[in-house]
Amino acid sequence: VTAGEDPASAGGRAGTLRELGERGFIDHVRRRLRPPGRGVTLGIGDDAAVVTLGDRTLLLTTDALLEGVHFRRRTAPLRDIGAKALAVNVSDIAAMGGEPRWALLALGVPPDLSVADVDELYDGLGETAERHGVSLVGGDTTAAPAGLLLSLTVVGEVEGAPLRRSGARPGDAILVTGTLGAAAAGLAVLEHGAGSAAPEAAEAVCRAHRRPTPRVAEGSVIRASGTATAMIDVSDGLATDLGHILEESGAGAVVRLADLPIDDATRAVARAHGVDETGWAVSGGEDYELLFTADRQHAATLARDVTLKTGTPVRIVGEIAPAAEGLRFLDAAGRPHVVRPGFDHFA
Amino acid sequence: VTAGEDPASAGGRAGTLRELGERGFIDHVRRRLRPPGRGVTLGIGDDAAVVTLGDRTLLLTTDALLEGVHFRRRTAPLRDIGAKALAVNVSDIAAMGGEPRWALLALGVPPDLSVADVDELYDGLGETAERHGVSLVGGDTTAAPAGLLLSLTVVGEVEGAPLRRSGARPGDAILVTGTLGAAAAGLAVLEHGAGSAAPEAAEAVCRAHRRPTPRVAEGSVIRASGTATAMIDVSDGLATDLGHILEESGAGAVVRLADLPIDDATRAVARAHGVDETGWAVSGGEDYELLFTADRQHAATLARDVTLKTGTPVRIVGEIAPAAEGLRFLDAAGRPHVVRPGFDHFA
Repeated sequence: VTAGEDPASAGGRAGTLRELGERGFIDHVRRRLRPPGRGVTLGIGDDAAVVTLGDRTLLLTTDALLEGVHFRRRTAPLRDIGAKALAVNVSDIAAMGGEPRWALLALGVPPDLSVADVDELYDGLGETAERHGVSLVGGDTTAAPAGLLLSLTVVGEVEGAPLRRSGARPGDAILVTGTLGAAAAGLAVLEHGAGSAAPEAAEAVCRAHRRPTPRVAEGSVIRASGTATAMIDVSDGLATDLGHILEESGAGAVVRLADLPIDDATRAVARAHGVDETGWAVSGGEDYELLFTADRQHAATLARDVTLKTGTPVRIVGEIAPAAEGLRFLDAAGRPHVVRPGFDHFA
Repeated sequence: VTAGEDPASAGGRAGTLRELGERGFIDHVRRRLRPPGRGVTLGIGDDAAVVTLGDRTLLLTTDALLEGVHFRRRTAPLRDIGAKALAVNVSDIAAMGGEPRWALLALGVPPDLSVADVDELYDGLGETAERHGVSLVGGDTTAAPAGLLLSLTVVGEVEGAPLRRSGARPGDAILVTGTLGAAAAGLAVLEHGAGSAAPEAAEAVCRAHRRPTPRVAEGSVIRASGTATAMIDVSDGLATDLGHILEESGAGAVVRLADLPIDDATRAVARAHGVDETGWAVSGGEDYELLFTADRQHAATLARDVTLKTGTPVRIVGEIAPAAEGLRFLDAAGRPHVVRPGFDHFA
């Protein structure tokens, strides 16, 4: 997760995608593509692409969810799968400070799916759409013998300049909305049971995993403040996603583990599973909170402002550092802490 | 393929998607969804959705291609798979009379795909993009254990009103660009060999199958003429796609089989395979020609105008009729001809 490192150049031309890694692959594609054409402000490499049409700025994002890779029908009702598939795309729009407008769904239907099942899926999708003012305007449906597939595209709009991953500067504060680790705790409960954790705690973290809330209003306030410098949503884990900001910004960072926001339910489930909840908070992913940086002098004010306007707590968890310092996590005593990287889709 | 028929209402609530059929499924989803929100001119059910942003009109379309369902790596080089995946989405924009602008790719990568393979895929995609002025601006990449997956989204723009499926009126002429059946002939060669057909003929139809040409300039001329009344691209076969126009327009049609444009290579391959090329032209699909209707008095002029401006031949193949007459195909002697329906993704 060190900024500036390129797995592709490390050992000559990599032959397999596993060797290249997800980030290396994206960089590889970005280098090979032609320079973007007319109206393209920002192409591949951020949460969403940015294009201009007349005096309007559009955000475009796509994400595919595959059964067996991103979800299991055994552990997730179809209603939740539909709701989450749209939510993770809406979250990409939120991560640029934009507002989602229209969605398209390419749906791959396995042979055992009934019409009632598909209705459940669309109902969940409709719940997310209604909550965030998104219209599902189109799609494509095909047979998918190997399992359910949902490929969503969301088109959003942003007033003024979208907030990119690349603007963090040494000295900036690092902030995060809501709490981290609950989605990973929920996945642990779904896969291994709740153990001795209270049913309420188990239910809360499962819900966090199944029904993430994209932070649209929060992202809009953060962007409009003018004091935020970079933003991303936490989909692959704090370590990985902060790594993306550092790579794009050419910077390092220090994160204080004791300051990470972790809710009581996640702590209770971690105790029941005999693990350290900090690992889930740092590497778990799928929280879909906003991770952003801001001018140090204005960070506390921005955090308060977001909470005031949206009700969502915001925590300062560290600072941006020069690139040479890399990404360091410090424990409560100020000692460096080794963190395993987050989710790599090819690993 | 009869207009107005709804498979879902035929036998009560259908339990499986196979019973419902592809068109029945789309109608089912369309009925269940909330009414489209702000800025949505046209939602699910046409080649592309139509949304407005300020004084601009955007077209949005998505199509997923799955290995084993839409293509086989055994018969199609990855470069062609990439080129075609984007081409079929560009064709949906062309079918509304619009111009493609930006594309997004959600790519599912099977374990055996090398970086060189992915480069081939992107190179093919880039060829289609460059040819039609499309910028690939974003994407998502994920592991796909069951096979290669390409889910493309294209955003296009249209000046004035896009040409929909729903405007055909009894008496209108039915026209088609280019030729029909070559893609089906190509698939036959790829799957069963060329037989006694000349290598040049076999190569020509294989190319038609692997590298369809979306008719962007043609669609734009047809829309701008003001005399066309409905349009669709031929993806699932003339019978099925004309059926969509009839269903949306509440009309019937008569098509003269002897007037269908079929090229010499397709005829030669049909002879070699001992089949009637008319079947390929009517039910084969994947030609990605434009099928459109126009005011009878202006149809011949429009056909000439398209050819003059784009070089692409246009043929008048039939007329729109009242809904009660259904969709009829007449042979050279004017006798009704039974046509099997085209491709249904759930059948």
